[in-house]
This record gives sequence, C-alpha cells and structure tokens, in this order.
Amino acid sequence: MGVPPVVPRCAVWRRWAPLGWLTGCHRSASAQQGGTNAPGVLRQRELPRSAAPRPCGWRPRSRRALHAAAPSWQEVMLTSERYGVRRLPFSRVSDGDVAFFERIMPGRVITNAEELKPFNVDWLKSVRGCSKLMLKPQTTAEVSQVLRYCYERNLAVNPQGGNTGLAGGSVPVFDEIILSTVLMNRITSFDKVSGILVCQAGCILEKLSEYLEEQGFIMPLDLGAKGSCHIGGNVATNAGGLRLLRYGSLRGTVLGLEVVLADGSALDCLASLRKDNTGYDLKQLFIGSEGTLGVITAVSILCPQKPKAVNLAFLGCQSFAKVLETFTTCRAMLGEILSAYEFMDEKCMELVERHLKLSSPVTDSPFYVLIETSGSNSTHDEEKLNNFLEQAMASGLVTDGTVATDEKKIKTLWSLRERITEALTHDGYVYKYDISLPVGKLYDLVTDTRARLGPSAKNVMGYGHLGDGNLHLNITAESYSHSLLDAIEPFVYEWTARYNGSISAEHGLGFKKKQFIQYSKSKEAILLMQHFKAMLDPKGILNPYKMLPSSS
Amino acid sequence: MGVPPVVPRCAVWRRWAPLGWLTGCHRSASAQQGGTNAPGVLRQRELPRSAAPRPCGWRPRSRRALHAAAPSWQEVMLTSERYGVRRLPFSRVSDGDVAFFERIMPGRVITNAEELKPFNVDWLKSVRGCSKLMLKPQTTAEVSQVLRYCYERNLAVNPQGGNTGLAGGSVPVFDEIILSTVLMNRITSFDKVSGILVCQAGCILEKLSEYLEEQGFIMPLDLGAKGSCHIGGNVATNAGGLRLLRYGSLRGTVLGLEVVLADGSALDCLASLRKDNTGYDLKQLFIGSEGTLGVITAVSILCPQKPKAVNLAFLGCQSFAKVLETFTTCRAMLGEILSAYEFMDEKCMELVERHLKLSSPVTDSPFYVLIETSGSNSTHDEEKLNNFLEQAMASGLVTDGTVATDEKKIKTLWSLRERITEALTHDGYVYKYDISLPVGKLYDLVTDTRARLGPSAKNVMGYGHLGDGNLHLNITAESYSHSLLDAIEPFVYEWTARYNGSISAEHGLGFKKKQFIQYSKSKEAILLMQHFKAMLDPKGILNPYKMLPSSS
Repeated sequence: MGVPPVVPRCAVWRRWAPLGWLTGCHRSASAQQGGTNAPGVLRQRELPRSAAPRPCGWRPRSRRALHAAAPSWQEVMLTSERYGVRRLPFSRVSDGDVAFFERIMPGRVITNAEELKPFNVDWLKSVRGCSKLMLKPQTTAEVSQVLRYCYERNLAVNPQGGNTGLAGGSVPVFDEIILSTVLMNRITSFDKVSGILVCQAGCILEKLSEYLEEQGFIMPLDLGAKGSCHIGGNVATNAGGLRLLRYGSLRGTVLGLEVVLADGSALDCLASLRKDNTGYDLKQLFIGSEGTLGVITAVSILCPQKPKAVNLAFLGCQSFAKVLETFTTCRAMLGEILSAYEFMDEKCMELVERHLKLSSPVTDSPFYVLIETSGSNSTHDEEKLNNFLEQAMASGLVTDGTVATDEKKIKTLWSLRERITEALTHDGYVYKYDISLPVGKLYDLVTDTRARLGPSAKNVMGYGHLGDGNLHLNITAESYSHSLLDAIEPFVYEWTARYNGSISAEHGLGFKKKQFIQYSKSKEAILLMQHFKAMLDPKGILNPYKMLPSSS
Repeated sequence: MGVPPVVPRCAVWRRWAPLGWLTGCHRSASAQQGGTNAPGVLRQRELPRSAAPRPCGWRPRSRRALHAAAPSWQEVMLTSERYGVRRLPFSRVSDGDVAFFERIMPGRVITNAEELKPFNVDWLKSVRGCSKLMLKPQTTAEVSQVLRYCYERNLAVNPQGGNTGLAGGSVPVFDEIILSTVLMNRITSFDKVSGILVCQAGCILEKLSEYLEEQGFIMPLDLGAKGSCHIGGNVATNAGGLRLLRYGSLRGTVLGLEVVLADGSALDCLASLRKDNTGYDLKQLFIGSEGTLGVITAVSILCPQKPKAVNLAFLGCQSFAKVLETFTTCRAMLGEILSAYEFMDEKCMELVERHLKLSSPVTDSPFYVLIETSGSNSTHDEEKLNNFLEQAMASGLVTDGTVATDEKKIKTLWSLRERITEALTHDGYVYKYDISLPVGKLYDLVTDTRARLGPSAKNVMGYGHLGDGNLHLNITAESYSHSLLDAIEPFVYEWTARYNGSISAEHGLGFKKKQFIQYSKSKEAILLMQHFKAMLDPKGILNPYKMLPSSS
C-alpha cells in the first residue's frame, strides 16, 4: 500500500471530540505529501490529464490498441475512419462562404490548418474531425447571421465552447464549421439582491466564479474543467459536477437562455425571474441538448451565497452498507450544511497511493467516504460535524477518519478523491463508465462486474458522487483488448438498464454514446426526441452525428 | 388600526438579545387573538375563501358587477357566454361513447348532472363548463385507452386533478370530457436513502406530506391548496408555493414523469435518478404545460429531510429599500437556514386588522417582513437568527419586531401574512395580479399603480414572496367597474413587460390569462409553443381553449 498511514487506525469515538487534534492530523499528512499535491489539482477533478483515448460508444471499425500515452493531435485517428461514419450530404465550405463570413466578422474567421488543429480534437484526444473553418462571433446577432447563412447553404455547424466534453460532442466529425463562443465572454449583469447573473455563453466558468466570489456569491456549479469550460457549454451539456448535491441541477438554477435556432432565428427566453408560468418552458429543451437544437448565446443563472465555512471529513467504512447508512445518518444530522458525499473503494486508494505516492491519513478500510459541509457559521458547522462523527464512530458506521477545516488541508484530502482518475491512467488501459443508479444498487455493479471479469481485468473499482447516485465504474487492463471490451459491454449497459439507471449520468451522449441511448430511454421517448430535432432543425445542420441515433 | 399592539414598539436592539423574552411576546399575541386563528389557516395561504370571482383574462362580453359574495355553481355564468368563446368542432359525447367507457372502467363513469356540477366550476367560482361526462381511471393503461379512443373519435378532454387552479385551467369550457386523477392515488415507492418518492398523479399533496413526515421527510413544495390539490396537477401547473425559496422549483425536484399523450401513447420518463444526461429532458415540457400536451399519470420527486427546527421573525421596516436591504442581510447571515422571506405593506396590515380583527405585535411600520428559518439544530438556528436581528436593529434596517419558535405561535404570525387574501375580499371588489419582477422593482409597481389610480381605487396594496421576486398586487374598490379595470389593464401588464417581468408568476395562464401571454413571451417563443402543441396534440383535444392563444 506504499506510504504508511500518517494517523494510526483507531476506532474510539473520543478521537473525534477535539477538533483541534483532528486538524492536527492534516498538518502531518500535508507535510508527507510534499509537492505532490500540485496546484490546480482541484481544477482537474474527473478529467484525466493523460488518459488514453477509449473508443466507447459503438464499436470502432479499427480496433487497434489504445492503451498508449495520449497521442498528439496529429496521431489521433479521424473519427470518420475509426468509427466508419458516412458524411451526410451537407454542402462543403467554398471560398465564397469564407468571403461572406469575413465580411460579417472580419479577422474572426480562422482557416489556417495549424490554428484549427486543437479545435478539431477533443480533450481526451479520442475523436478528431477535419473542419477547415472556425468562426468567432461576438454577438447573438452575428450567430444569427452565421446560422441563417449556413441554413440556406446547407452547411453543417459544430457549436463549440471550451472543448472540454468527454463524450466527443464538442468537435466536428467531418468538416462542420466550428462556431466558437470564445469571444462571447461579457457579463451582462449581476443583481446582488436576487443573486441572478446574466452573461454571454462564452464566459469561462472559473472567471464567473472569481467575479462572483468578489461579491460574496458562487456559481451553483463547479467542475473539474472550470478553467476552460464555457457556461454555454455547461448548460448545453447540463453539466453536473461537485455542487449538485447542494444546489441542485442546472434545470433548477438556469432561469433563462437566449438561443439561436438552426435557421438563424433568435429565441429570447432570457428571463431573470425565479417564477414564470407563462407558457411552456422552452429553455429546458436546450439545456442538455448538446448543441443539436440551437446555439445558446446567453444565460441567466441563480447564484447562491458564498459559504463562510467549509469543513471536510475523510472516513473509513467497513462495508458499502455502512457507506449508505453513514450517508443517511449524516444527511439527517448535517442537514442543510451537507455539500458533498463522495465515496471510493480500497482499490482506488491503493492506486492513488501506488501511482501518485499520495498518502492517506485513513487506511485499511474497504471503503472511504469524503463528506464536505458548507455553511454560514463555522462554529455551528463544526459542532454539527463533531456530533455526527461521534455518533458515526459510536455506532460503528465508520471505524477511522480525519477532519480538515482550512482550505489547504481540505484540498489535500480532496486530492485523494479527485486524483483517482489520474491514478487510473497509470494503471494501464482504462475502460470508463459514468453511471447513475438507485443509490442502494450503486456498488453492486462494481461487485458484479468484478465477479464477471475475474482475472481478465487487472483492477475493477468504483468511486463517485454517492450523494447524487453517480458511480464511476472503472476497469483497468494491461492493454486494450476486444475480448475484454466484449465482456464488459453491453453487460454494464444491460445491468444499468435492469435497475432503471442511466448510462450517462453527467457527461452526455455526444458522439461516442449516442448509439446506446436505448439502454436508458424508451423507444417512444427516442422517437419523440427525433421529432423535436426534426422540428427545430429540419436540415439537421446543428452538431450532426451527435446525441441521437440516426432516425433510420 | 383596531386592536392595539400587544408589544409596545421599541427600537432598541437589545430587545432581541434574550430569545426567551421574545418568545414571551407571542404568548401574549396568541392569547389576544383567541379563536380567530382558526385551524387550517396555514393550509389556506393565498386562497381566498370567499373571493368574488373576477373575470381577469381578456374582457368578458358581459360586464356585470362581480363584487357580490361567491355565487353557487348554479349562479356562475357559463364561461362560453361570459367570454364569448366559440366551441371548436370536436365530436359530442354519444351514448355509444359512454357505453364504451363503461366497459373499460365500469362504475367509474359519471354522467349524473348533479354529481358533475362541482367539477364543471372552478374553486373561485369564476368559470363554468358544461361537461356531461367524467371518467375516473385508476391506471395509466386506462388513461391510455381513454385517450386513444377520444383521439380517434375527436372528443375533447379536460384533465383534472384537485380542481384548485386559479386561472380557470382545471374545468371544461364547453362539454370536454373530464378526465379525473382522483382514483390514481397510490404511492409506488419511497427510498429513504435517496429521498425519492414515486407515486401516481392523483395523490393529494397533504397525504404525501403526511406519509413523508412519518419517515422524516417533507415534500419539496407546500401550497395553500394542499388539502385538495393533486401532485399531478401541481406538476402540470408547475406550482410554486411556500418552499420555493429553499428547495427550488419543481423543474429541479421532479426527477421523472409518466405521461399519456393525446393519441393515447404512454411516455415513460419515470426515472428516479438525480442525474441522467441521455437525450433531451422530455419531462420538462410537460411540467407547467397545464394539461395541454399530455396527461401526467405518475411522478418521481426528490424530497428533502424534514427540518428539526423552525423559527419565525416578524419585523417592521421604514421603507421598501430597507425591506430589500434586510433581505440581502438576512440571506447573508442566515444562509442555508433561510426558508421564507415574505413582505406586506401597511395597507395589508390595516385590512387584516380591520376586517379580521387580527392584531399584530409589530405595528406602525410602512412595511412588514416575515422571515422563516428551517434547520437541523434549534440552538444554532436561534443563535443565527438572533445575530441577524441584532445587526438589523443596530443598523436601523428594522425598527420593531418579534420572534416565534413554537408551532402555534409561528402559525399566529404566519396568519397575519396568509390571511391578507381573505381580508381583501371584505374590502370590496378585488382586482388581483400575480406578478414576477426583478426584486428591486417589486414595489414600484404598487406605487405607480397607486399614483395612477388615485381616488378611483379604494385601496392599492402589495405583498408576496419577496424572496422569489413574486408580488401580489391587489386593488380594491367598492364595486367592479369597467373604467377602473381599463385604468389598471393593460397598464399593469405593460409595466410588468417593461421590466421583463412575468404576468403569471405561479398560477399559470389557464383559460383566463392566455390572451395576455405576449406581455411575457416573445412572438417567436409563442409560435414555437404552438408548434409543440400541434406536434404533440395535432387534433388539439387536450385541454382546449387553455394556455395558448389560438394560432389564428
């Protein structure tokens, strides 16, 4: 298990009583880790920095080994070749088209092949298109002009925000025009009384967070990709992230949208009201539509107060049943201050320790739990947390643990959870699944997958946002193999479907998972989605080849 | 001002320090009010018991005086006559149709005219249809059978829950078949770990609340009509209510729906997952669609823990600017425990005291504020509340106030706010408006309306859910008059539109406000809504004459 535990394992509840003592643990833990807890780690939750690209989605035509280090853009196989996709009969961009766009947005039309490269490849370097044109509008009117023109010319368009998507939805499959929101980064207004922010779609999430924090507010969502992702892209993919347990999904916090439809018409649903029952809530259709129904150009969003106190407890549990019981207990006792309940199994801890040389102050448990509280009064919050911890220890729900109250130590403990994805990439080829399940069933999928695969897998492990019912199931092997993939899929999808789970909890379907939608949605629902798509984008020019299986 | 104040007005902040003393205030207040605080008052927030029906919406053809006491069903003018509506060319129910329905749901087919009466008239007794047939399905399959038949036969259908709607959306306009969810009242499941409840659409909100409270949970919404309204109807109208400030809207808490479409096909979106990004979120289209796109037959909803401590503060402010500043201060200091922030002006207090003989322990202020906290630790919550109150008094934001911590006293103070609607009905004919506005503009509408109307109105007053930006603007007069109505409308709608507000914050458009939708929604948005309606219900049989203006 690598580095020995900093804090000797000890099951007496009294250990929890003096919070100062517990905080003391962390100083040691932090000191032992030294420089390994690199700055920026908190920014990279869920996003493997050097993850090998994995052709999840339907089977790639060419099944070459994919367990090597992430290839550069040049090395990424074209999506169309790897997956055997046929180009739809859209027009091809002509010199006349480029000249038109140059006229309406001079200097913001990119045709240089080198410049275009990073926008043709996804962050995971797993899919690649060959767009020859990127446009950078600054206003909704310009987006309208572009789409009106493209619609008339039958030119396909790939809306792109920060290009941080994990399902291959943010880059072209062929030569779609990349319509980037990178220059649409103005904050329109912020009302400190209502907490409502209105901004353009291209604002970077982290910039918005910084802006709000100066005024005592926070964004209702926080993501690993916050340093790059655009709020418009977050809304378009209905991003989940780290604050969902506390502040709910974007479907509740997004109050208004401005959207440009495929034919170029602008739809103004940019209300800044908490309540509005005048007609169908059209904006909901665009939240999570992954750019296939319209291009989001502006967002109105409700922002919570910045919490004054944040605490974190990192605990060891002897079974998954106890992880669940600890969750119900802490939810009851921490109530309104609970802001995260994450779990990881011992395999995850083993890999984090082995590959990243992190050391945990809590060791030798089959399961680990990370509990975060956010509140308005540090004394009250610490007292609540201590009461809960005393009870959890006394009743044997948890057998070991530690608590942090200052930001640095909190980051150190968070890193044990958030660097799992990074650790996995050092373990070999990784088969990744992002699954929603009824919370009681969450870990059974890991157990069943482990039993099914036996020694053919190197490691099978589970971790994730337990409070949201979101499991990250990961399987590692020395290298990619057809037979192992066939043993995993469709087994995992079928298992998930049996318990009415979702095969994509927060990443969306994008390009790579679109053919598996039927595991989570009924035929009738998929048909209705296709009708909506046909109604709003009859020529299918918006983000083609994504999200929905083709109608045929 | 009627009954003298129980607690002498006193602006020194020290008054707030000993919470015991403050609680003492209430015992006096409660004793003075005696039996006037009738049980069930808390259940009747917003719903005037004897409100005169007001033909809001477009102008009624016959403008007779409407300020009399609520008429019985027999006296309510037929909607078609009052508003001059033309019946659309749907088929008429034949004996053969009745026989068919009797075969599929024997004993649950109502054709008796007397029995049908209460289901043809709305709760406000302001609109009346003349349906000759009510069906009471028990299962989704039966709803499917009914709609498939009606769709083929071109028979119009009026889905009905508890018939508590305030916009005339829940009763037929002509002879639409009433499709009642009254017998669809089974709870399917409740998961104590996730807090997710799944139930049929006809479950009464209060019954669900009682069921959940036994298990330590609450419904995420609470309404005046909770004793009658159905959860399916709540979802269909996107009901707001008293818990929205804390738990957010149904768009965030409803996790899944089962819906039967106009042609009888059942759409299963009944997921019980907090996260699911597999395709467009179809259920959102049915939330708030007022039965015009499909019949909701089952609901999956995320329920919060029952708070262990509830506190209430009732305060006096010297200006609306101070009401707003008090809001931002208390939101910052109470943070996660703030569960309601309501306000009322002195006119409201005057009428509550004069007409209902209630007495307030806080008097002589131009504005009153009601602040509720809900949390998991009473000691912490009271300390937070006291800290806030000390600061609010010290900085002159509030000049007087009182606090209650036990349920009975809390109800007594709530009654000052929640019985305003009832008090208004004793003041003459009431012109009622339910408006969303940017919170900073909320009271300007009251001031401007008062200035505009001058002595032609008896009283102009404002109160509402300030925390949600929801104003209840009310104007009373000795009797209904055309000229006063013309002075108010479209002035109020135009004023609201100028500040991008909503002409219906929480009641929906129903039948009575459908022609005013353009004050809150753009032409493009309305057109798109009409396209959705045409796509999902091409024959227009579902709740016709409601929500959307006719396409022509």
